[in-house]
Amino acid sequence: MKMLIGGQKRDSIDGKVINIFNPANGELIDTVPNSSTKDLDLLLEHSLKGKKLWGGTPLHERSKILLNFIDKFSLHIDELAELLCRETGKNIKEAKLEVGLVPVIFRRFLEGANHMYGITLPDSQPGGERDLIFTRREPLGTILCIIPFNFPASTYAYKVAPALATGNSVIVKPPSDNPLTLIRMSELLTECGVPGDALQIVTGSGSVVGKYLVGSPHIDAVSLTGSTEVGVETAKQAASNLHRVFLELGGNDAMIVYEDGDINLAVQEAIMARTTNCGQICIATKRFIVQNSIKDEFTRKLVDKLNSLKIGDPMDPSCDMGCLINEAAALKIKEQIEHTLKQGAKCVLGGNIINKAFFEPTVLADVDASMDIAQDMEVFGPVFPVIGFDTLEEAVEIHNASVYGLNGGIITKDTGKAMKTAYQLECGTVVLNGNGRYRHPDIAFGGYKMSGIGREGVSSTLEELTQVKTIVMKGILG
Amino acid sequence: MKMLIGGQKRDSIDGKVINIFNPANGELIDTVPNSSTKDLDLLLEHSLKGKKLWGGTPLHERSKILLNFIDKFSLHIDELAELLCRETGKNIKEAKLEVGLVPVIFRRFLEGANHMYGITLPDSQPGGERDLIFTRREPLGTILCIIPFNFPASTYAYKVAPALATGNSVIVKPPSDNPLTLIRMSELLTECGVPGDALQIVTGSGSVVGKYLVGSPHIDAVSLTGSTEVGVETAKQAASNLHRVFLELGGNDAMIVYEDGDINLAVQEAIMARTTNCGQICIATKRFIVQNSIKDEFTRKLVDKLNSLKIGDPMDPSCDMGCLINEAAALKIKEQIEHTLKQGAKCVLGGNIINKAFFEPTVLADVDASMDIAQDMEVFGPVFPVIGFDTLEEAVEIHNASVYGLNGGIITKDTGKAMKTAYQLECGTVVLNGNGRYRHPDIAFGGYKMSGIGREGVSSTLEELTQVKTIVMKGILG
Amino acid sequence: MKMLIGGQKRDSIDGKVINIFNPANGELIDTVPNSSTKDLDLLLEHSLKGKKLWGGTPLHERSKILLNFIDKFSLHIDELAELLCRETGKNIKEAKLEVGLVPVIFRRFLEGANHMYGITLPDSQPGGERDLIFTRREPLGTILCIIPFNFPASTYAYKVAPALATGNSVIVKPPSDNPLTLIRMSELLTECGVPGDALQIVTGSGSVVGKYLVGSPHIDAVSLTGSTEVGVETAKQAASNLHRVFLELGGNDAMIVYEDGDINLAVQEAIMARTTNCGQICIATKRFIVQNSIKDEFTRKLVDKLNSLKIGDPMDPSCDMGCLINEAAALKIKEQIEHTLKQGAKCVLGGNIINKAFFEPTVLADVDASMDIAQDMEVFGPVFPVIGFDTLEEAVEIHNASVYGLNGGIITKDTGKAMKTAYQLECGTVVLNGNGRYRHPDIAFGGYKMSGIGREGVSSTLEELTQVKTIVMKGILG
Amino acid sequence: MKMLIGGQKRDSIDGKVINIFNPANGELIDTVPNSSTKDLDLLLEHSLKGKKLWGGTPLHERSKILLNFIDKFSLHIDELAELLCRETGKNIKEAKLEVGLVPVIFRRFLEGANHMYGITLPDSQPGGERDLIFTRREPLGTILCIIPFNFPASTYAYKVAPALATGNSVIVKPPSDNPLTLIRMSELLTECGVPGDALQIVTGSGSVVGKYLVGSPHIDAVSLTGSTEVGVETAKQAASNLHRVFLELGGNDAMIVYEDGDINLAVQEAIMARTTNCGQICIATKRFIVQNSIKDEFTRKLVDKLNSLKIGDPMDPSCDMGCLINEAAALKIKEQIEHTLKQGAKCVLGGNIINKAFFEPTVLADVDASMDIAQDMEVFGPVFPVIGFDTLEEAVEIHNASVYGLNGGIITKDTGKAMKTAYQLECGTVVLNGNGRYRHPDIAFGGYKMSGIGREGVSSTLEELTQVKTIVMKGILG
Repeated sequence: MKMLIGGQKRDSIDGKVINIFNPANGELIDTVPNSSTKDLDLLLEHSLKGKKLWGGTPLHERSKILLNFIDKFSLHIDELAELLCRETGKNIKEAKLEVGLVPVIFRRFLEGANHMYGITLPDSQPGGERDLIFTRREPLGTILCIIPFNFPASTYAYKVAPALATGNSVIVKPPSDNPLTLIRMSELLTECGVPGDALQIVTGSGSVVGKYLVGSPHIDAVSLTGSTEVGVETAKQAASNLHRVFLELGGNDAMIVYEDGDINLAVQEAIMARTTNCGQICIATKRFIVQNSIKDEFTRKLVDKLNSLKIGDPMDPSCDMGCLINEAAALKIKEQIEHTLKQGAKCVLGGNIINKAFFEPTVLADVDASMDIAQDMEVFGPVFPVIGFDTLEEAVEIHNASVYGLNGGIITKDTGKAMKTAYQLECGTVVLNGNGRYRHPDIAFGGYKMSGIGREGVSSTLEELTQVKTIVMKGILG
Repeated sequence: MKMLIGGQKRDSIDGKVINIFNPANGELIDTVPNSSTKDLDLLLEHSLKGKKLWGGTPLHERSKILLNFIDKFSLHIDELAELLCRETGKNIKEAKLEVGLVPVIFRRFLEGANHMYGITLPDSQPGGERDLIFTRREPLGTILCIIPFNFPASTYAYKVAPALATGNSVIVKPPSDNPLTLIRMSELLTECGVPGDALQIVTGSGSVVGKYLVGSPHIDAVSLTGSTEVGVETAKQAASNLHRVFLELGGNDAMIVYEDGDINLAVQEAIMARTTNCGQICIATKRFIVQNSIKDEFTRKLVDKLNSLKIGDPMDPSCDMGCLINEAAALKIKEQIEHTLKQGAKCVLGGNIINKAFFEPTVLADVDASMDIAQDMEVFGPVFPVIGFDTLEEAVEIHNASVYGLNGGIITKDTGKAMKTAYQLECGTVVLNGNGRYRHPDIAFGGYKMSGIGREGVSSTLEELTQVKTIVMKGILG
Repeated sequence: MKMLIGGQKRDSIDGKVINIFNPANGELIDTVPNSSTKDLDLLLEHSLKGKKLWGGTPLHERSKILLNFIDKFSLHIDELAELLCRETGKNIKEAKLEVGLVPVIFRRFLEGANHMYGITLPDSQPGGERDLIFTRREPLGTILCIIPFNFPASTYAYKVAPALATGNSVIVKPPSDNPLTLIRMSELLTECGVPGDALQIVTGSGSVVGKYLVGSPHIDAVSLTGSTEVGVETAKQAASNLHRVFLELGGNDAMIVYEDGDINLAVQEAIMARTTNCGQICIATKRFIVQNSIKDEFTRKLVDKLNSLKIGDPMDPSCDMGCLINEAAALKIKEQIEHTLKQGAKCVLGGNIINKAFFEPTVLADVDASMDIAQDMEVFGPVFPVIGFDTLEEAVEIHNASVYGLNGGIITKDTGKAMKTAYQLECGTVVLNGNGRYRHPDIAFGGYKMSGIGREGVSSTLEELTQVKTIVMKGILG
Repeated sequence: MKMLIGGQKRDSIDGKVINIFNPANGELIDTVPNSSTKDLDLLLEHSLKGKKLWGGTPLHERSKILLNFIDKFSLHIDELAELLCRETGKNIKEAKLEVGLVPVIFRRFLEGANHMYGITLPDSQPGGERDLIFTRREPLGTILCIIPFNFPASTYAYKVAPALATGNSVIVKPPSDNPLTLIRMSELLTECGVPGDALQIVTGSGSVVGKYLVGSPHIDAVSLTGSTEVGVETAKQAASNLHRVFLELGGNDAMIVYEDGDINLAVQEAIMARTTNCGQICIATKRFIVQNSIKDEFTRKLVDKLNSLKIGDPMDPSCDMGCLINEAAALKIKEQIEHTLKQGAKCVLGGNIINKAFFEPTVLADVDASMDIAQDMEVFGPVFPVIGFDTLEEAVEIHNASVYGLNGGIITKDTGKAMKTAYQLECGTVVLNGNGRYRHPDIAFGGYKMSGIGREGVSSTLEELTQVKTIVMKGILG
């Protein structure tokens, strides 16, 4: 596939390409251009035009175009899901669910944008009785959207929909391993009427493309989902131009299981949270903080259930789990497990690479609150470290002893205890009697502490991607 | 005076001090501690306790304490205004106005905080019918408030009031030249019941204290008003810990005067905006973009009016203008004027230091849109560069050719033209038929582009200083 | 056509019918059932089931059904417009515009309903720290929607869309003269998935059907657009059961034309406001309050322009104006004109019935502020009374000397004067430099004083058609 | 005491008076004027001036005056509580609590009013791109506030505070039995700066004064707390002029006690809800719906606890309960008990008048869901009917089988069951694990069905007492 620059499908100027492989079987799917800064300069030039053009397009026209996209998109779900499955290794059922969310997310952001009002002030200030003060929300300008490999389609929707709906122009940097689905989605958007200067997608190495664009004075904001390490670097670089940054970063989310909770529910929620997308989810539950009195039972039941999972060809809908994004990902998880075993944990299930990018579900017992995996070491794979605790205070302390703070889950039948715990957890969303992998398009999704800056959801992002202009008609009420 | 650390009035551990002088006559007013990192470590330790304590204090108790402060403060306005006048060189009338705003600002933020609601979602997501989803706003933690010399009392109020009202703990870094008023205000706050760990004030060199605190993982956000240069550095440093930053930075605000506007109003607004606080205001009008057909008349009338200004002892209420914050400030302005004359401007009034920190009102004619003073060189003193234009498009282009974008003003009798211009100006607030120096505590004050990140005002800051926690009671409606 | 009761197309139980004629040519178009109270009892029984069923349907399902309707509706616009034209006498161009608004209005209300959040309170009350307080919005129950003849399709949308979107069940009483379009629209809604118990439409004499239903304890609210006389009667009757009433009633809207205004614009706006739908609009401009210095010129230009209007067959798109809803309407207007002439006005154009329901555009000069037409006598036809004034105060006084207060218009080039006037007018919407016939689906449309109770628009109606339930989880945060 | 008309303390024109007695001992406390329609005409004349004057007073001035009242009021709490106790028979502890709420309520409404913003619309409508649309909230005009005898001081605050804060002028009709506290409060308001035309208080017989004023075209809205019977009459009468009505009416609130709930908590909550103010509370719990398995235990414990209550002199702070408002009230309760006994209930405690207006706490067992007391017969005294049930569905059915629907309570340890029940109850507020007598000034207090129209609380009343004016600056963005 090609990039979309200024409305044209383009190769890179110097003709270089990147190969895109299917991680499940190693086959070459396609190539995409490998951009150099020459391509990026051209892209930025178009984005300057794009932000004038799209920002000056009335909301009702933008709305019409995006509705058109929402309608048309439904015809492409199967095609896109298959492409996503092949380039990502994600199970086809999950791929369909994800792609199916795209029009839902676009619609909800558009609905919100259509009714985003400014304010007028009453005569509450002495001397200002004759002044009329009102506000309007203007777009920030050009938003650079950097999309991660794990949920490219839905993350694209969460970033691009509010940006376009509010009149911003967008540059998309898709993930290097699996950019194809997003290129196709971008083509659809432009075919439906979004001007080619207002929505561009550029491929290439993250270290070249990301760095160059983040540092450019010609963009106005960066919306990135990725690792905390990359997030911090991005924030530093963006600071030179005081660009707004919206960062959805790493997590080491926990589920706290109290002894009075439904243990079967706990096991089921654990598996749903940790095996979906092969565990490659920022809000996957990555730490299982279980009251000591039931820790062994929980572990046993967890192992039993995991033993019956079917792992295999992502395109086979009867499989429960596909593979990781690439072999390097598998090797990294293997290392992290070994590191944890060295720190004293015991592996009671799995622990190994099955084959290339396929990895065994792994349960680690005897995990201690002081180990890295219990604090700041995020594992992006189907690994279940089980950590014991005795009191509510202890559970909260273990939970909060991480630099991260995305989502959390609590299993208990005692709503009072659940609520008391929830108020103390340092994270963005807490789910009672469920794992923390919970999202609703209106929720201000995102984390506390090093898990990010800014929130994604209808109730927050539309405001974040716009800036208030206050207009004072001084003396007009004379 | 002393610092307030953990509720105690303290000297610096190694006993060093900074002298505080009256810039109008050079007399030594007082000393304040010159902190080292040892003091700062102690301070941070207390702030960790403070954020737990104050964040856990119910809103109704915080509210009671802050109302108590608002009531008590009124008894101290004269005392504080005099102190502010002496350490700043600000005219006593202006000092009283500024100090008088403190309880007004506190009250409005408190009112807003008392009615800041979370949300609950309807059953708008398939599969979520049995879930109850609601949000609550939690404080960020510890806010480092870095206050500038020009409006220390009101800026303190704009930063500290919303931070305390929303349950954040606060560390105040006052300006080095004039910290005394703020120390006194902080004493009053703690006397009225704010815990000593929740509100601390620390003095010392900006490069030591600011840098150390901004870089500490023990704070959670920085709210700074200062230069864009310092703002960028702060943003970069804060990025390491992903701290939120709220930056009110430089500006080179403009007033556009159309030929059909009231020229006498234009002149009067120009002088009000540019001589108050001796021109040391971020939202002072610093560029006068005047339609060519009336440029000479405007300049002549401006010079005439300025000639009759009385400059002198800040404590003398009959004076119109006092002095700058220090002699260095005067020398810098002198340099900036000379630089502009070299670039081709003509000085038609003033241009010189009167005596130490006192500076003449200065009018520069023949200023060209390409000169630094017409773009990104901010002059913090009573200097009026007049730039001509012919068409609306040209006026907008000159206005927007700055990296800054705080406030702007437009003088015209044609409301349609005013509005059309206002929509195109890249800045946070536009005042029609007035200068841009306009503020209402509810307005989301702050700028576009390099003028800052985040906004100050009841309609924005309370949300910015809090973070949303979403709680999902899954299956509760079974 | 038949009624829709409990999802069935039904005749009246005793078989009576009402004939529906084309007012433009007198031809019989169709018949509809003439209900008796037996039919109404059946209808009410179904509505009790309907409100349980639809109120218990999750928002996401209601939303899906209504989106389906919005999509399907577009295919029926031409068919419905023609039907509307024939049964109403409304010009076909206007009919298409009106019918075309239906999906737009449905969409906007649905968008709003999808994001209507409840609130949660902070711990702002002593003693309540451990309580969680939140709200949800519940439907009122069954809304009786009484639709007027003049804009049946769009009014239906304004009433039915928010009612269904918020989970209320609906009973529609269409206008007696032209119920066919609404029956067809109701069929489409049920075909698209709205349960037959949740949306019913019943025909019959207003005095029987309306009265019986308004007085029934089995409905929960009445939303009526009609005359103030009927509105008052409805309010009185509904009071017995404390039903909510939402009343969009009569108006005698005025346009104030100042001497400095654009007189050609004024004339054009006058004609647009007063000839559309043959003047049968609640927010048609019905009083022309013109500054004396330009009154004659305004009148002359108005007469000239009106002389060139083409009046005739509503189905002929080249015609500017069709006929009134029936001959009785024409006779009433004739009477009102004669009454006004007796009070001293002078007819300078028209004044007569052309033929049956066709009426001449009529200009009345020398109208005095004391005449009925200048105060509370609403004329529902193309009649232009011109009233002179000298000062702003006088214009405001004449404007406000009516028991009505829907919309108003002001023509002037002086925005300050316009705004000053606008603030003093006792009416719901004021349009500067336009006639008052201005509507946006989000505006809280509706009037002051005797023009009604409640407002129609996305920013108000969704809240009006729901009731807040507050839930306190006492002590839960223990 | 005298009335306040046009800022003057006045007797009635024809000199008639009403005697005010202490119901606890029969002593004459004072007299108040007994108005005739002559007095009322004068009053209305002043209110016309008052609404112009106060509505035209900028918010910041209104705010200053009301803050002044809030500050001054605190000095009068003891004096007013004693007066309230004496004229009402309310226990002095409760009287102090009630009077102490007055400044709290005023403050919260004022806070809300200070930040009540209008809106501006985005360019979401085709053809409207060049139009600026904004809204402002204007007062309704004159609000007639009819105050009940049971909580006169706090109800006065709930009605008068939002009315004055939003710029409405107010006429207060205090209860006939105990008007003195309210007269004194009104004096304080005018002493603090509210213009005498904008706040008036008039005494006299309800049937004369209320009726005349409600029917007058010179008022704009009625805010009444009282019986449903009076409410319906008021609504009917107000309908003639289409006045807005805000009605807080009768209730027959229930508490549902599940067998798994804390039975001691249930008993304690029952007593708190039903003996405070001698049971004369609209949101007192009046029906005790108890699961059959624990009904006997509940009843036994209830009787035990009630036996230890101390009833006596309201001025004696050691007493738990004072007397009813007058002897007629006691007689009515006696009758209602006898009626219920005749219907088959059994009296297991009390049942009789102690002395004049003092009444015994009364427990009625064997109450059946079909009896009047279990449905629509509201008892305004310390009477506890206990009704059994077996299933959740049955409890909900009994609860909802009343025409009333103010507040409700649910006692259970199972939050899911509580929530499921809460969602089905037809009432305005549901308290989990508490009685329904719960109020927070921000809550939209008020009921479903025949319990009223409109809501009282910061989150609702400020909007209800104002009307939106939309201003369209057409073509201004040309």
